[in-house]
Order: sequence, then structure tokens, then C-alpha cells
Amino acid sequence: MAKTLDRSLGDSLSVEGAAVSEMLAAALDRVAGVVRPEPLLESMRYSLLSDGKRLRPVLAIWCCEACGGESSMATGVAVAVECVHAFSLIHDDLPALDNDDTRRGKPTNHVVYGESTAILAGDALMAMAFETLGQAYGTSPMCGRMVVELANATGAAGMIGGEWMDLDAERKLLDAEDVERVHLGKTARLLQCACRLGGMAATADRAQMAALSGYGKALGLAFQIADDLLDVTGDPARVGKRTGKDAESGKATYPGVVGVDASREKAAALVTGALAHLEPMGESAERLRQLANYVIDRTV
Amino acid sequence: MAKTLDRSLGDSLSVEGAAVSEMLAAALDRVAGVVRPEPLLESMRYSLLSDGKRLRPVLAIWCCEACGGESSMATGVAVAVECVHAFSLIHDDLPALDNDDTRRGKPTNHVVYGESTAILAGDALMAMAFETLGQAYGTSPMCGRMVVELANATGAAGMIGGEWMDLDAERKLLDAEDVERVHLGKTARLLQCACRLGGMAATADRAQMAALSGYGKALGLAFQIADDLLDVTGDPARVGKRTGKDAESGKATYPGVVGVDASREKAAALVTGALAHLEPMGESAERLRQLANYVIDRTV
Repeated sequence: MAKTLDRSLGDSLSVEGAAVSEMLAAALDRVAGVVRPEPLLESMRYSLLSDGKRLRPVLAIWCCEACGGESSMATGVAVAVECVHAFSLIHDDLPALDNDDTRRGKPTNHVVYGESTAILAGDALMAMAFETLGQAYGTSPMCGRMVVELANATGAAGMIGGEWMDLDAERKLLDAEDVERVHLGKTARLLQCACRLGGMAATADRAQMAALSGYGKALGLAFQIADDLLDVTGDPARVGKRTGKDAESGKATYPGVVGVDASREKAAALVTGALAHLEPMGESAERLRQLANYVIDRTV
Repeated sequence: MAKTLDRSLGDSLSVEGAAVSEMLAAALDRVAGVVRPEPLLESMRYSLLSDGKRLRPVLAIWCCEACGGESSMATGVAVAVECVHAFSLIHDDLPALDNDDTRRGKPTNHVVYGESTAILAGDALMAMAFETLGQAYGTSPMCGRMVVELANATGAAGMIGGEWMDLDAERKLLDAEDVERVHLGKTARLLQCACRLGGMAATADRAQMAALSGYGKALGLAFQIADDLLDVTGDPARVGKRTGKDAESGKATYPGVVGVDASREKAAALVTGALAHLEPMGESAERLRQLANYVIDRTV
């Protein structure tokens, strides 16, 4: 397994990430209606257009291409998943939830714009995700399935339910199975959704969709374990936020339950599983393989 | 104009409202996924299934029928608009926004379940609105348009943008035009959306859609003025929440800007306008006419 970020993957990621940022800015400008208060848009822009890995939109685009689609076919799903991700960060950081005041080295949304604007900006970003999906795929027979996929991954049965369990976990003693359930909801489901939406945008067949689903779920769990490990072992300047916070607040983390070494092993096993899911896809899935290895690189 | 609630309209409303409550409960039970924390669902249920006028879903169903559709065709849109409405009430009541501790005579969501659960329950209800739309109309060519309609009415360009302006208005001196813009976003857009979605569920033609759009917008503005008037002149026991609060908090209201009498006149003029939009629809729109008159009854 590669120990450092593969040069060509790094290049691909930054090219794709820059293209995604342009798509996001354009999508924000397209929001039109009876009202459109600029300070609210400004707060949405702050979180949606801030630097980030753009992991979810890049996954959507690369999964679309791995299934034989053009990257432009995935623009709508790429924007939609990033809107949902940005919304979730704003709300998770709120004082009533994780109470974080920095993210990616910058003050969080509510610190800059105030709590009420941050709550509404998060809400508006979720609505924008669905508006974008409807606009981009309204004439496609896949539209309904895409909307259900994103809404299910976002809602009480997915990311939002996982975030609730994560907060609830602060009051409880969890085992590894509980932590996996929290991670499945909080992180893995939306990453899997990004992969599946990318596949749907390419009208992937059943076998391709199964491969992307398995890959996305395993990658998502590995990614969250890597994130937990960074909180324990990472350098705050590099991570872009305060570290050691999970343990302080009693968060559900793998290292907290099974220790650092077992967590690294688990993440490695998940990446191996993710790669196995991609086997039938051959050459077309090469960048998805590199991305899975990149997740592991973050943990060592 | 009728001075009291027409008996047959009252009966229709309560029959339709009870049917809507059953639809909502069934829709909540159908949410399935990788996680599904019961306390979060409980908080969603508390707001979604609490007593209410069910004005938005009833409008959607009646507009569908007015365009020649069966009421069952509007089940999905009825549930979806009520999910968005319930989400908006939970978030509007939060301490950082309107800071209301009672609604419809009951403690608000965050008072019962805590702020973090209330924020996430609101979020999850918005996601559920779109999941429901996608499930109900995924095979219809109208699906994309419906999703765009609901998302646009909900987001920064509609309800959420209006709510932001409403909060911002507390620090400003507004004129009647400003107040109308706030009301258009905060209230009228989602009521209009309910009407339009009902029409789309019946695959309404262009003329029918134009009639429903005009009706819904005028009705929505009249409804918000009526609500403002109730806050000034209403009895708290009947209104189900503390009255006089808008004036205290410097909210953007019609009575606050043009006075009680001019507000009543404005509401009456809007209802007349709403009725004019329905003219081409003939007999089939009779209950929609009664509903418009009912809105005015609330103000006298």
C-alpha cells in the first residue's frame, strides 16, 4: 500500500477540486426566487466555497466516469452532495451540537455570521441540494431514484440520524459495534451516496451499482476511522481544527473503543474490502483505488 | 363575505385533516435506512403529528382535485409540504431564532427534546419531505419539476430566505413593501407551492397552473396578514401561543406598519384577488373559494 499520496492522484484531486468549486459557485448564483437575502447567501457561500477536500463531489464524478459516463453528467450530483456536506458541517459545529469554533483553520459559520444565520444557511444549503438535483436530472428517468437516494442518506435513517447518535454517545459507554453504527450513519452513508449518485448519473447497471455501494460504504467507514485517528495522533496545524476534542467530549471513536493499533488495522481491512468491491470494474476504477489507498495514508 | 366558518368547509377541513394525519404517521414509519434513532423519530413525530390546521396539505389535495385529479394522487405532495412546514416551525421556534416556548398551546420541540435534537429533527423532516416526493412521484415525468418547486419554495429564495429577512427586520424600520417581501418569502411561497404541487400531481395544464399560482400567492399573503392581526387582536387561549410578541420583538408585520384597519382592508383585497384567479376553474374550485373566505373570517 502506498505510504504517501500518489503524485498523479494529488494532481487529479486538485484539478477536480478546482472544477467542483466553480460548479458550486455557479450553482449558488443560479438560486432565484421571490426573496434572496444577500447576507444569507454570503453565509452559505462561506461554508460551501471554503477550501475542502471536495471528497464527496470528486467521488461522485469519478464513480460516474468509472461506469462509462462523462464527468459533465455528474455535475448535478457533485454539487448536491457537497451542499448536503456543507449544511451538515454548519449544523454540527453549532453551540447546541459539537460547539466547534474553528474548522479547516477558519472560524466556523456561526462564529462569523451568528447562530440564527448559520442555522438558516445550513437549512438553505440542504434545499439547494435538492433544487440542484431536480434541475440537473428533471428530465431523466433516474431523477426520482436520485432524490430518494440523497434524501435517505441525508435524513434520520442516514447522516442526520448518525449525528444524533454521535451526540447521544457522549452520555454512554459504547462498544465497537455501536461505534460502527454511528459511523455508518454519520459519515459512510453520504460517501456511499456520492458514489451511488455518480453511478446513477452514468445510468450504471446493477453490477456496477453494487460495486459502488460496497466500495463507498467501506471507504466511508475507513475514512471516519482515519478521521478519529487524526484527532488522537494528528497535529492541529495540519488537521485545521483543535485535536483531542473527541476524547474530551466522550465522542464515539474507534481509537477510544479498540485503541490506535486495532483502529489502523480495521481501517486497512476496510480499504482492502473497498478494493475487492472494485475488482470487477477493471481499469476504469483506477483512481477510485488510489483514493482508497489515500485514505489509509492519512492514518499512518 | 361569510363572517363565520362555513359548516361544510369546517367538516371538509376536519375530515381532510384527519386523513392527512394518518398519511403523515404512515410516511414517518416508512423511513428506513442504516440508522434510525427512536428518540430523534419521536421528536419528529411530536411536531409533525401535533394538532394543526393542515392548511398546506389540504390545499395541495384540494388543488389536485380542482384540476381533475383524485385526492390519492396528492398524498405525496401533501406529506411533503407538511414535513417542510413542521421543519420550519421547529427551527423558527429555536432560542437563536424566534425563541418561542409554546406553539398551539404545547411546549415547543426544543423545550421538550432539547436544542440539538430539535435542530436535527427539523433537518430530518426536510430530508423526509424530498424522500417522500421522490418515492411517490419517482416514475412520473413531473418528479423533477416537483422537487425543484418544493426546494425553491423552501430555500434561500423562498421560506428560509423570508425567515432570515424576518429576523433581520427586528433591527430595521420597514415600510409596507418591505413587509410584503418578508411575507412573500416566509409564508406565501410555501402556500403557493402547496397549490402548485397539488396541480402538478393532477398534471394540470398551463392555465390551471397559472390560476393556482395566483390564488396561492394571494391567499398566502392574506393568511400572513391574518396571522399578524391575530397577534395584535387575538386571545392567547384561542391562538394557542403568546400574543403581542411580534410588536415586542419588532417583527415585520402589516398592522405594525399600516395599522389594524388598513391591514384588514389589504387582507380582504387579497382574498378578492385570490377568488378572481379561481374564476376560470368554475365549480371544481368551490372549496378553494371557501378556504379563501375562511382566512378573512380569522381577521374580523
